[in-house]
Amino acid sequence: MVELILACDFGGTKLSAAVIEAAALAAPDAAWRGHLRRFSPPGATAESDINTMVEMGRELLGGERPSHIGISFGGPVDYQAGVVRLSHHVPGWEMTPLQQLFAHAFQAPVRVDNDANVAALGEWRFGAGRGAADLLYVTVSTGVGGGWILDGRPYRGSAGMAGEIGHTVVDPNGPVCLCGKRGCVERLASGPYMARDVALARGLPVEAVTGKLVAEWAAEGEETAVAILERGAKGLGIGLGNAANLLNPRRIVLGGGLTKSGNRWWQLVRETAQATALPEVKFDIVPAQLGDDAPLWGAVALTE
Amino acid sequence: MVELILACDFGGTKLSAAVIEAAALAAPDAAWRGHLRRFSPPGATAESDINTMVEMGRELLGGERPSHIGISFGGPVDYQAGVVRLSHHVPGWEMTPLQQLFAHAFQAPVRVDNDANVAALGEWRFGAGRGAADLLYVTVSTGVGGGWILDGRPYRGSAGMAGEIGHTVVDPNGPVCLCGKRGCVERLASGPYMARDVALARGLPVEAVTGKLVAEWAAEGEETAVAILERGAKGLGIGLGNAANLLNPRRIVLGGGLTKSGNRWWQLVRETAQATALPEVKFDIVPAQLGDDAPLWGAVALTE
Repeated sequence: MVELILACDFGGTKLSAAVIEAAALAAPDAAWRGHLRRFSPPGATAESDINTMVEMGRELLGGERPSHIGISFGGPVDYQAGVVRLSHHVPGWEMTPLQQLFAHAFQAPVRVDNDANVAALGEWRFGAGRGAADLLYVTVSTGVGGGWILDGRPYRGSAGMAGEIGHTVVDPNGPVCLCGKRGCVERLASGPYMARDVALARGLPVEAVTGKLVAEWAAEGEETAVAILERGAKGLGIGLGNAANLLNPRRIVLGGGLTKSGNRWWQLVRETAQATALPEVKFDIVPAQLGDDAPLWGAVALTE
Repeated sequence: MVELILACDFGGTKLSAAVIEAAALAAPDAAWRGHLRRFSPPGATAESDINTMVEMGRELLGGERPSHIGISFGGPVDYQAGVVRLSHHVPGWEMTPLQQLFAHAFQAPVRVDNDANVAALGEWRFGAGRGAADLLYVTVSTGVGGGWILDGRPYRGSAGMAGEIGHTVVDPNGPVCLCGKRGCVERLASGPYMARDVALARGLPVEAVTGKLVAEWAAEGEETAVAILERGAKGLGIGLGNAANLLNPRRIVLGGGLTKSGNRWWQLVRETAQATALPEVKFDIVPAQLGDDAPLWGAVALTE
């Protein structure tokens, strides 16, 4: 009998699911047996997203029962309890027992964790983190979040909140973040904040600028974009260097859209992180390898 | 036959050793069977300090062979190899195989680690950290250093360098530290740096002021001392809050002389740390309980 693993990703605006044969995981280039992606429509709720995901799973499995299910969720999760705490994107998720709901729907054991922890696990097991016993994964995108592998296993903290590098303070005199503090890494380095800073400085409508545009303008030498992008890269670099001093991970893996901001961005992040860390604290900073499917691969790793 | 544990502490300016019966450790108020302390004289070398410590151990053991030896060293240690990397206080320590030397001298298994890791372990096993599976210990003294207990066991990092909270940057526009960076926690919050800042601001000889005096003057309301001590407490608080966001430890234990700086210092450290951490990241900050013997108790815990 073929052992099937179902991987699910609740990504905020999109829902992804895939099925893989457990036996395929031993191969260096394991491939999905099936893969589906749907957008979470405007007006979606926790209930409608869950129903859609269960349908996608049933369609992929075609009547077979999975041996394990792994779920990545884009928001805070109580991993031990298998409960989603809330979503910042979709209403109705407060304290949803997602593990229990899927275990009931598919009659299989389920593990669920937040997307940053899952992506860390995925990169460590299948991507840029292979072979590193101690690893920090950071996504730099609409937000800045992270996950840890320490001593060869995921580390989640006493209440599953570990990895919140986005809200570490790297400049107490910096600009104010929505979290109420000044100079958080996320305030300096995330896409929407950089876009807004550039828009305001150039007198453009806030909606007209994105993090991707900031990177493109910076590449063309536009001064405001260069300054904001470099400030963000340095802020992120201090945050990573601080994390390296605190935990001495061997490798730092960076994922998310902002990592496509070009060589100058990477150079500044790396230089600042190394300068912030003590000379004896050595690490590599490398790009993530799994791309959009990182949460699904991580969800597979979560079941192991 | 009585099982004896030998605990040793190479503390920079002083050498301490103690012996305890393994069976006594089960009691809530386990006491040393014997305890010795000697000063490391001016002109001491690694070799002379090692010889003195071996003599102290032999004197305490009175001809008996220890079942285990635990050693705390005030400087960077390669725990896996049992090798001291160097000392910032005493010459000749570079790459000293301390584990091997003591194993040979006493014919017993030896473990050696740096004082911050050992103190973290000691407070977790015998002191203020009991019952906390995830713990950060920080000493605030002539320097600022730390150690981790994560998921119920010591975490040392990929090269034994984890815990360097003193050299995390909390204000990139702050004063310059000896490490070359600006606004490290140690630059803002350690005794000698605060003493120097107060001395220079008040036009006093640098040798005339100590961290303890700064705390005393601040308690009396002297403005410069108040400002420098509060800046230090806030800098430390940001560092602790950042560490809490990154690792979500349940408890933070503070040791070292500066923790005797009074209620206002504690209040500022706690308030700043909580304000820096996300609302969901909850932790207590409590004083260490083991005092001067913390490294010896930690060395005992190291042998378990």
